[in-house]
Amino acid sequence: MDAGQSQVENLEYDFSTLDSFITPNDLFYVRNHYPYPAASQEADLGSWQLQIKGKVERPYSLNLDELRDLPATTLTATLECAGNHRSFLNPPVGGLQWGQGAVSNAEWTGVPLRTLLERAGIKPSAVEIIVEGADKGEVKTTPKPAGEIHFARSLPLDHPVIADTLLVYEMNGEPLSVAHGAPLRLVVPGWYAMASVKWVQRLVVTATPFNGYYQSVDYARWVRVDGMPTRVPITDMQPKAAIARPTVDEVLPLNQPFCMRGAAWSGGATVVKVEISADGGEHWAEAQLEGEPLPYAWRLWSYEAPAFTQPGRYHLMARATDSRGKRQPMQRDADQENYMISHVIPIPVTVQ
Amino acid sequence: MDAGQSQVENLEYDFSTLDSFITPNDLFYVRNHYPYPAASQEADLGSWQLQIKGKVERPYSLNLDELRDLPATTLTATLECAGNHRSFLNPPVGGLQWGQGAVSNAEWTGVPLRTLLERAGIKPSAVEIIVEGADKGEVKTTPKPAGEIHFARSLPLDHPVIADTLLVYEMNGEPLSVAHGAPLRLVVPGWYAMASVKWVQRLVVTATPFNGYYQSVDYARWVRVDGMPTRVPITDMQPKAAIARPTVDEVLPLNQPFCMRGAAWSGGATVVKVEISADGGEHWAEAQLEGEPLPYAWRLWSYEAPAFTQPGRYHLMARATDSRGKRQPMQRDADQENYMISHVIPIPVTVQ
Repeated sequence: MDAGQSQVENLEYDFSTLDSFITPNDLFYVRNHYPYPAASQEADLGSWQLQIKGKVERPYSLNLDELRDLPATTLTATLECAGNHRSFLNPPVGGLQWGQGAVSNAEWTGVPLRTLLERAGIKPSAVEIIVEGADKGEVKTTPKPAGEIHFARSLPLDHPVIADTLLVYEMNGEPLSVAHGAPLRLVVPGWYAMASVKWVQRLVVTATPFNGYYQSVDYARWVRVDGMPTRVPITDMQPKAAIARPTVDEVLPLNQPFCMRGAAWSGGATVVKVEISADGGEHWAEAQLEGEPLPYAWRLWSYEAPAFTQPGRYHLMARATDSRGKRQPMQRDADQENYMISHVIPIPVTVQ
Repeated sequence: MDAGQSQVENLEYDFSTLDSFITPNDLFYVRNHYPYPAASQEADLGSWQLQIKGKVERPYSLNLDELRDLPATTLTATLECAGNHRSFLNPPVGGLQWGQGAVSNAEWTGVPLRTLLERAGIKPSAVEIIVEGADKGEVKTTPKPAGEIHFARSLPLDHPVIADTLLVYEMNGEPLSVAHGAPLRLVVPGWYAMASVKWVQRLVVTATPFNGYYQSVDYARWVRVDGMPTRVPITDMQPKAAIARPTVDEVLPLNQPFCMRGAAWSGGATVVKVEISADGGEHWAEAQLEGEPLPYAWRLWSYEAPAFTQPGRYHLMARATDSRGKRQPMQRDADQENYMISHVIPIPVTVQ
């Protein structure tokens, strides 16, 4: 990766190769909105500062050494792009045409957001914190603000996720790379990854809810209040079981049992069940969950599928149920537009 | 006007004919988003009901007779479409290409919104009231909710304008017409007219702020929080002085003084000064304000302009200053996109 390039880099993880709980750093998917920011280049890091300001008693700045001197926490969290699986939608919708690989799982090390906020002293009037990245550019779709804007997202200060949110500088035990947000990236565990702002440069505490471009126009959806649509930011990941193997359009031998493998996750909850169907959702069988449940990490699963005894075209399905009892729906909610593709997605295979 | 038509009716007031403080009902501009709703037809009014529900102690419905039995208030208020003057923008922007006539002034009679809310009993958790019209359809621009939606806007319950907001059934002493929202229209005085919902059918009190299509995607703008754009609903009218005469491209005789006339208004404040420039804004002279200031009504003004002594092309300008000291800017704020065209707009004339 050439961090000095002016193109916008987006790289998908080849989900069909899934074979480990942790995604290696060089395979972890990359989603960027703008070219890599100059401030993330190594040469500039001596003067790099994180600003904490707004509705706080004691605004301050921190350099990288000061950040690394603070007590660190390590957390395993799955990041999924809110547009993961978009290319499976029919009719097609706008946005990057991700297959199944805009999702990966890593161990993140950094400073709890709460540590930095407590040091600043949140004023009683404060309601949200805006996290601003160093990446910037002009947005393409209306309604759009004039000129260049920075990527930014906010979190409500009274949301439970605040307690587990980190500002990370290590990924899987290695220094965070520029592609993944170095020198400092937010990780909001359990939320779609647009919330995990890369190249963090400012934390701004506000007394009013923030309706930035990336949570009101983009990365937002409609929910209904007594039938009336109201626009809300996209936040927590919905339960999803994804099938890594067999792959789309794979040819399976007739009369031969086969192994299905994949991963399943849900925002802020653990996956308690993955079910498999090979007949369009009429019958479901339970898959085997591997490892132990962790609140913010995916869970690998496998299923020894019985042989198909007739040649033809089949659709394999997997669906997850999480510890709150939430199960993947079979149908898509159109109010989610081109995000949160969390309904059950059939993977077509041929048996011959 | 055929209220049964399926087309969307939008009619501009011929602002060049301005000669009275009150705009006659048949000249008052009309801005609709959808065809006239069937529920506004006279035949259906026997079964018509206004619903008040949501975060209230005592949800209830009212029919028209019950509404008319409540103590009524009369208020003079200028309504201006948030897109008034749009056709003067260069480069052009999307939306109805209004000239100067998407503004009019009337006397409105009806029941204070507060009366209806007090009868319902607002719960302590309530923060906003959503006012829903009977008009509906599919919106055309993204991001858009699925299916048909009703036109709807909300008001924060702690906003001072709540105290002066009316649900009206008379306009200039006559029964409200279907074109203007019969049987019942909201009038939010001092706010751009998209807030004055027509054909009101429901009042829904909510515990969270409403981000409906008509205040988050449409009729919204960007403001900056520490440089970061945040999307907010368009609300109060900005100070504006509009020139009714001379008209655009009018030919004025050389060496002859002429009279300029127009109206000026500002949301929730009175206009205290209108100034005129005929030299591109270098020199300004004060116009004469007519009548008495009223908080929510426009004020007519006139100016006896000295003769032009050289033939040529000139640009006449008027600018208003309101009682809060707010004066029309000379430049457009691009974050207002295609709304709130409130900067000083030159009216070109030819002198020969």
